Amino acid sequence: MARNIDLNCDMGESFGAFEVGNDAAMAEIVTTVNVACGFHAGDPLVIHRTIQTAKENGVNVGAHPSFMDLWGFGRRPIQGERPADIEKQIIYQIGAVQAMADTLDWPITHVKTHGSLGNMAAVDADLAQACVAAVKAVDPSLAFITLPYSETYDAAEAAGIPVICEVFADRTYDDQGRLTSRKLPNAMIHDVDQATEHVLRMIVDGEILTTGGKRLPVEAQTICVHGDTPGAVSIAKQLRFSLEQSGLTVAPFQTARHA
Amino acid sequence: MARNIDLNCDMGESFGAFEVGNDAAMAEIVTTVNVACGFHAGDPLVIHRTIQTAKENGVNVGAHPSFMDLWGFGRRPIQGERPADIEKQIIYQIGAVQAMADTLDWPITHVKTHGSLGNMAAVDADLAQACVAAVKAVDPSLAFITLPYSETYDAAEAAGIPVICEVFADRTYDDQGRLTSRKLPNAMIHDVDQATEHVLRMIVDGEILTTGGKRLPVEAQTICVHGDTPGAVSIAKQLRFSLEQSGLTVAPFQTARHA
Amino acid sequence: MARNIDLNCDMGESFGAFEVGNDAAMAEIVTTVNVACGFHAGDPLVIHRTIQTAKENGVNVGAHPSFMDLWGFGRRPIQGERPADIEKQIIYQIGAVQAMADTLDWPITHVKTHGSLGNMAAVDADLAQACVAAVKAVDPSLAFITLPYSETYDAAEAAGIPVICEVFADRTYDDQGRLTSRKLPNAMIHDVDQATEHVLRMIVDGEILTTGGKRLPVEAQTICVHGDTPGAVSIAKQLRFSLEQSGLTVAPFQTARHA
Amino acid sequence: MARNIDLNCDMGESFGAFEVGNDAAMAEIVTTVNVACGFHAGDPLVIHRTIQTAKENGVNVGAHPSFMDLWGFGRRPIQGERPADIEKQIIYQIGAVQAMADTLDWPITHVKTHGSLGNMAAVDADLAQACVAAVKAVDPSLAFITLPYSETYDAAEAAGIPVICEVFADRTYDDQGRLTSRKLPNAMIHDVDQATEHVLRMIVDGEILTTGGKRLPVEAQTICVHGDTPGAVSIAKQLRFSLEQSGLTVAPFQTARHA
Repeated sequence: MARNIDLNCDMGESFGAFEVGNDAAMAEIVTTVNVACGFHAGDPLVIHRTIQTAKENGVNVGAHPSFMDLWGFGRRPIQGERPADIEKQIIYQIGAVQAMADTLDWPITHVKTHGSLGNMAAVDADLAQACVAAVKAVDPSLAFITLPYSETYDAAEAAGIPVICEVFADRTYDDQGRLTSRKLPNAMIHDVDQATEHVLRMIVDGEILTTGGKRLPVEAQTICVHGDTPGAVSIAKQLRFSLEQSGLTVAPFQTARHA
Repeated sequence: MARNIDLNCDMGESFGAFEVGNDAAMAEIVTTVNVACGFHAGDPLVIHRTIQTAKENGVNVGAHPSFMDLWGFGRRPIQGERPADIEKQIIYQIGAVQAMADTLDWPITHVKTHGSLGNMAAVDADLAQACVAAVKAVDPSLAFITLPYSETYDAAEAAGIPVICEVFADRTYDDQGRLTSRKLPNAMIHDVDQATEHVLRMIVDGEILTTGGKRLPVEAQTICVHGDTPGAVSIAKQLRFSLEQSGLTVAPFQTARHA
Repeated sequence: MARNIDLNCDMGESFGAFEVGNDAAMAEIVTTVNVACGFHAGDPLVIHRTIQTAKENGVNVGAHPSFMDLWGFGRRPIQGERPADIEKQIIYQIGAVQAMADTLDWPITHVKTHGSLGNMAAVDADLAQACVAAVKAVDPSLAFITLPYSETYDAAEAAGIPVICEVFADRTYDDQGRLTSRKLPNAMIHDVDQATEHVLRMIVDGEILTTGGKRLPVEAQTICVHGDTPGAVSIAKQLRFSLEQSGLTVAPFQTARHA
Repeated sequence: MARNIDLNCDMGESFGAFEVGNDAAMAEIVTTVNVACGFHAGDPLVIHRTIQTAKENGVNVGAHPSFMDLWGFGRRPIQGERPADIEKQIIYQIGAVQAMADTLDWPITHVKTHGSLGNMAAVDADLAQACVAAVKAVDPSLAFITLPYSETYDAAEAAGIPVICEVFADRTYDDQGRLTSRKLPNAMIHDVDQATEHVLRMIVDGEILTTGGKRLPVEAQTICVHGDTPGAVSIAKQLRFSLEQSGLTVAPFQTARHA
C-alpha cells in the first residue's frame, strides 16, 4: 500500500499593498496551507483570499500564529513575554482565522507556530505548553504541526491533541534531532537530489541521519516547503515529483476531524 | 410587570501599556460589555481580561469591531474601502473575540460596530449590509446592537438577525430620528435630570422627542453609557439609580441565544 | 540650448521583510527619488538604503510623507484630521528622512506628498497650506514637488518656497488642469507613443491638452514615473529614451539649494 | 558655591487617543524632558505638545528613542537585530524629534535610550557603540544621558560626545555599579527618606553605596524621575524639595550647546 505524505507551506503573508509569495502557484503543489494571522503578516482580506485558494485546491488550511511583530515578520526573538500571555495571543489569532474559514465553509484543520515563536517554543517547555494550551482551548481536535524532538512535540502529545510531525527537505538535523542552527555552515542542503534523498530517508525509512552520523527514529507526516524564495515554485514541484516517483502519495494529512 | 432595560458600555480599550477607562468599576454598573477587538484598541490580553470581568459580573459580552486604525482610535472616517473588504475585517475581529470568549466559557452574545465604522454604516446602506453580513456569517444568532432609524437597523432586520435597539441618554435626535451632529450646539444633553427624562421618554413612552419637536416611535432595549470620560463611573451609577427609581429593571438584554 | 527635464519616482516603499519595487533599477533611470518616510511604507533601514542608492546614482532625494496608514499604503482617503495636525505629521516625517540623509552626506532637496494626502491637499486649500507650512518650517529652501492647477501649487508659491511642477505621462487632464479621476474611462494613457507625445506637448510646448480639448499653459519641471507596476522599469527606460531623442536633457531639477 | 543637579523625566508617552502620564505637572518639577519618538510611544502631535511644554517651562528637551515596539512599549527585549540597523532606527527617531523641536525654536539638547534598548545597550558594547554612533552622526554636540559603569557610558566617552551621567533615587546598585535587577527583592527603594539619602550620597559625596557594601565613585549630573506611576508627581516634588533643602540647585544640565 502506498504511503501518504503531506506537503505544507506558509501562505497568506501579504499585508495590504505589500505583496509576498506565489500563493496561487504554491497552492497547486502543496497539500496543506498555513495562513498568517495578521500578527507577523496577513490581514483579513489576505486571510480570506488564502483560505479560498486552499478550498479551491482541496487542501488543508490552518492558522499560523506568531509574535506580534509585523516589522520583524515574526522573526525577531522577543523575550520577556509570559507564556500565559502568548497563549492568549495565539487564541486570538486562531479564532480570527477559524471564523473566516468557517464562513467560507472550509474549516481549519490545524495550527503551526511561526518563526521565532516556533523556534523558541521548540526548546522552551513553558512556551511549548502555552502554544499547545491555546490550540486545545480553541478546539482539541485541531492538529498541531511541529518538529520532532521538540518541546512542542512533547507538549502536544502530553495534551492529547493530534500531532503532525514535520520535517524539512533542505535542513540538516543535529544529534539531538533538532534543526542545525542556520549559523552553522552545514545547516542547509542546497542540492535537490541530496535533499530528496534526505527527506525520503526520513519518510520511507523512518529515520533522521544527523550531522554527527546518528540515526534517530522519526514518523514524519508532512514536509515543510518554502514559498517565498526565488525558485520556490520550481523547487517545490521538483520535490513533489521526486516523492511521487518514489512511490509515495502526496495528499493532505488526515486526522479524526477529517472523518 | 417591570420593564427591563439594558445598559451597554464600550470596554477593553487599553492596548499594551496604554491603559484606558475604568473597566472594573463600569462592569459593576452596566449589563452589557462591548469589547474592542484589536483594530482601534484592545489586544489579546486586554480582550481576555475584559471577558473575564464580564463573566465575573454576569453580564453580556460582545465584539466591538472597528476600522483598522489604532492611532485614530477608529474615529477617523476612512473612505475608499469596499464594503466586501469591511465584511472580512469584521469577521476577523468577531472571530478573535469569539474564540477568546469560548475558551473562557462565556460566549459572546452580540456585535456592535465602533466609532466611524458605526457612524458611516448608519447612513450607508452598502456598508450597513456588509456589517450585518459579517455578523450573520459568523453566527446568525448573534445580536446586532444599533441605532434606530439607521441603515444598520434596517439591514439587520432584513437579514433576520436579532436587533437590539440602542439609545443615548446624553444625545439629542433630529427629525429623522438620527443623532444630532456633534458639530451642532444642541447635540449633547449635559444635565443629568434632563438626560434621565430624555431616556425615560424613549424607554417607557416609546418615543423620541426630536430637536424639531417631532415624536418618533422607538423600542429601545439598551442605553449606551460612556466609560472613558471624567466622571463616567459616577454618571453611569446615577443613571442606573434613576432608571431603577422609575420602576425599570436594569438587566442584560436577552435573545434566543440566552435560552 | 537643450531644455532640461527631471524624472521623479517614489521609492523606498519596502517595509521590514515586505519588499516592494525595483529601486536599484529605477534609480539608474530617474533623476529624483521620493523616499517613503515610514507612515505608509518605508522604515529606517529602507530609508537609509534608498538614500544611499540615490547618492550612488547622483540623483536628488526627498521626503515623501503620507497619512499614517501602513495597511492602506497611504491610499485611503482619511477624513477628520485637522490641518494643523497633518502639519506636525509631515514635519516628523521630513525630519526623520532629513536626518538620515544628512548622516549620509546627501541632503534632501525636496518634499512631495504621497497618495491620498497629496490628492486631498491638491483640492483643499487648508490642507495644502498645512503641507506647505510643514516644508517651510523645516527648511524654506526645500523644494515642493506638486501638480499644476492645484491648491498645493498655489500655497507653495504664496509661501515663497521653490515649487517644482510635476506632470504625468500616463494620465490625462480635465479642463480645470487637474488629473482626470481614475474612475473615468479616459483617465489613463496606455499607449507609450501617445504618452510620449502627451508629455512632450506639456514640456516642450508648455501646454496641457485637456480631455475637453482646452489648451492650458504649464511649466513642467519633472515627470512622475511609476516604479512598482509590472513593466515599470521598461516603461521608464522607454520614456527617458524618447525624451532624449526629442532633444531634452534628462537631469535632476535644480534649485538655489544645489548651488 | 551651590552644586547644580538636573532632574530628568520621560514624557510624551501618549499615542493618539491613548493618554499616558502627567506631563504638564511633571514639566514644572523636572529640568530635562526625554520625548518618546513614536516607536514605543508618542506621535507627531504628542511630540509637538511635549516640546512646547518643555519650552514653556524653560527645560531641556531631548529624544528618547526605542526599539520599534508600540505594543510592548519598548520594554520587550528584542533580540536578533544588527547594531548597524539599530543605529539607523535611532537616527530616524532623533531626526523626527529634532525637526519638530527646531520648528518650535527649542532645539533638542540630548538623547537618552528607552527601556529594553537602553538596558541591553548598557551591557552590550556593540549595541552601545551603535547608539552612540547614531547620536554623533546626527549632531556630535548632542549630549548622551546614560548610566555610570555601562557600555553606553564608555562608548559615549570614547566617541567624544558629551555624556550626562544619570542616577536613580529609587533603585539600588550592585557591586559592578549597575542597577540591581528588578527580579531581586532589594532592587527598589520605596522609602522616600531612604531614597533621598541614597541619591544625595551619589550627588554630594560622589559615591554609590552598592548592595554589597562597596563604595564606587560617581559623578552624577542628572536624576531620573518617573512620571507615569501613581503618586509620581508628589514623589518628584518631594525629591526636588529635599534636594533643594540640602543646598543643591535643581537646574537643567548644561553642555557646550547651551552656550
